[in-house]
Amino acid sequence: MPEISKRAVQMPASPIRKLVPFAEAAKRQGRIIYHLNIGQPDIETPETALNAVRNYSSKVVEYSHSAGIESYRKKLAGYYGKYDINVSHNDIIITNGGSEAIMMAMMSCMNPGDEVIIPEPFYANYNGFSCYAGVTVKPVRSFIETGFALPPVSEFEKLITKKTRAILICNPGNPTGYLYSREELESLRDLVLRHDLFLLSDEVYREFCYDKKEYVSVMHLRGIEENVILLDSISKRYSACGARVGAFVSKNRSVMDAAMKFAQARLSPPTFGQVAAEAAIDTPEAYFVSVKNEYVARRDFLVDALNRMAGVFCPRPSGAFYAIARLPIDNADRFCQWLLESFSCRNQTVMLAPATGFYSTPGAGEDEVRIAYVLKIDSLRNAMECLEQALAEYPGRKKGTTHAGAQAGNR
Amino acid sequence: MPEISKRAVQMPASPIRKLVPFAEAAKRQGRIIYHLNIGQPDIETPETALNAVRNYSSKVVEYSHSAGIESYRKKLAGYYGKYDINVSHNDIIITNGGSEAIMMAMMSCMNPGDEVIIPEPFYANYNGFSCYAGVTVKPVRSFIETGFALPPVSEFEKLITKKTRAILICNPGNPTGYLYSREELESLRDLVLRHDLFLLSDEVYREFCYDKKEYVSVMHLRGIEENVILLDSISKRYSACGARVGAFVSKNRSVMDAAMKFAQARLSPPTFGQVAAEAAIDTPEAYFVSVKNEYVARRDFLVDALNRMAGVFCPRPSGAFYAIARLPIDNADRFCQWLLESFSCRNQTVMLAPATGFYSTPGAGEDEVRIAYVLKIDSLRNAMECLEQALAEYPGRKKGTTHAGAQAGNR
Repeated sequence: MPEISKRAVQMPASPIRKLVPFAEAAKRQGRIIYHLNIGQPDIETPETALNAVRNYSSKVVEYSHSAGIESYRKKLAGYYGKYDINVSHNDIIITNGGSEAIMMAMMSCMNPGDEVIIPEPFYANYNGFSCYAGVTVKPVRSFIETGFALPPVSEFEKLITKKTRAILICNPGNPTGYLYSREELESLRDLVLRHDLFLLSDEVYREFCYDKKEYVSVMHLRGIEENVILLDSISKRYSACGARVGAFVSKNRSVMDAAMKFAQARLSPPTFGQVAAEAAIDTPEAYFVSVKNEYVARRDFLVDALNRMAGVFCPRPSGAFYAIARLPIDNADRFCQWLLESFSCRNQTVMLAPATGFYSTPGAGEDEVRIAYVLKIDSLRNAMECLEQALAEYPGRKKGTTHAGAQAGNR
Repeated sequence: MPEISKRAVQMPASPIRKLVPFAEAAKRQGRIIYHLNIGQPDIETPETALNAVRNYSSKVVEYSHSAGIESYRKKLAGYYGKYDINVSHNDIIITNGGSEAIMMAMMSCMNPGDEVIIPEPFYANYNGFSCYAGVTVKPVRSFIETGFALPPVSEFEKLITKKTRAILICNPGNPTGYLYSREELESLRDLVLRHDLFLLSDEVYREFCYDKKEYVSVMHLRGIEENVILLDSISKRYSACGARVGAFVSKNRSVMDAAMKFAQARLSPPTFGQVAAEAAIDTPEAYFVSVKNEYVARRDFLVDALNRMAGVFCPRPSGAFYAIARLPIDNADRFCQWLLESFSCRNQTVMLAPATGFYSTPGAGEDEVRIAYVLKIDSLRNAMECLEQALAEYPGRKKGTTHAGAQAGNR
């Protein structure tokens, strides 16, 4: 029997999805699970997007252009214009979700053995894509105490070698919810210029910036137009994760030509999803206002509830719909599995993502979990009651933990 | 300005799509182009599939399971059962078209530097996927004189090295239309067993087998269940290329577990496409009967028309909807470009795919083109009239070419 490849062995299993069998077992036992482990929002997809698909009138579901339907790309360029991201449809390749955009960026800019620096904790699948591309991730650590602010540029500098080809950021951040300031991004710009690196930026949560804080895109930074690749997706923007429509955006012609070859090899992105995405651009502003208000209310409820719990600390994120909380526990993986296997609070439990899966440094994040606030406040309330009780019962609870973090979280 | 990767430089541009700018220019000049260059059928997608999407009733377009919607996988296993391919839904991962299935197979079974043997001419994007995966393609030549029958196993044996990990076939074949016999496939089975190789088989044209010839799947071969990966797609079956729904099928658990990690990294295949695909399984048999009759009529018209032309030879394929023709020309790339740039027959021209793009051996296929018979006979008739006139006018026509091939083509 022939053996699978080494890279398949090395390929990490999704840390977010590896608890799924335990969740399925709990469900079979009739327990209710609050899913705060995955960024699958409960927000409704805009009607305008769904109706476009329902009214699909072509007789043949044809391949689209490998770069995506031209009318969609033109309209998408207009959408970016509203965020002062000035691109034409020729600067855009539509992808199979944001995932493919990240892979295309790695394939186009990096060779096997090259290195990419990523602030950690980071979206766990960056590890998978790096493995796919044979690229080595060099993590630069950010910390819960600062709400996961960008590490000082000097920390990046320490990691730069001859093999360093790119820096990859996520802004607003998954899993941290952190929104980078203009100053932070400008410091990255200078670094990128100094070392002639690519700057890849995953900005799929742009619609989810709170507290009137400014969203700054890498596309706004002057002087690094040739270094920058914007990675995007409609999954979160329109709560249309299953449409599998993302975008790869760059002003660098060589990069676009390279990515186009990868795009041509896989023929085209999905037609139905693009039809939904094109129509979704007409989603009324009121939709986003109401979604944003909803997320802010959930965030505040969640962060406040967490910081009231003994020994728990959760910074208040300014973007996306995730928060990382530090819990008084020995090991987040064990705790999250225990929640599903052994814990019940009025026949309910909660599913969280252990933060360890978002760190590349071994041992980091062992007492942290990522919480996606993708459920309504009533469910969040039940989930937080479960969590508080679970922390009280959990055999691996740390001794002598206090409320110290709570005040910090309210800053 | 940072440089793109070496693999992006090496990545081949799609030979099928590289003539597109010339076609666009011809269209701007008002010329009608008969597109025989690409496997985009004009056949209508079954109503049952389109209606399922039109009736999509969920409020949120959610991620599906990374392996695909379970109910769809179960129904798909039933579909395979009708072809005596006995698999369960756990042996199936739904992919972003057949393209992703091929890439997953390469990533799961092969390391960078490993070798895959592929009978040439082969589907051009296999080159792209191999480049993506860092795998080296070793072509084993098949010839137009035999209609592109499987080369003798001894020719494969000559190419086997320590790095050989797999054999990749396409059956029925794109671009050849050749349908492998049971004997041919059994000889491959013995070879695969002898050298402990993977056997990857792209069988997306299974519905298009003609002349009552038997379709034999690699999944029918006894004793190599652990070696075999079936690569599939609904694109051609239901004329739904834009749905981007394929499948990766294997009884080898290690392979499935490996592929699942790659599947999880990209989260899920497209939801709308899967909804269409699941419904499409109920397409009435009459649809396929009528489609098949249509293709047989087109094939016969095309092959007969070609073989009547002076100096042209075209074997009669038993499957898919492609034929390779040998033309009395100096260079197929030049000829196909000339057709678009410089030729007009009553303000019409024809777009063909130079066969060179389907060969890996330099210089092979220089006087061959691939013709996709994806247009109605009336259009094919016009296209063949254009082609005949073009061959008469083309400055690079070979001297002294005769009708010799014509009779052979009618065998």
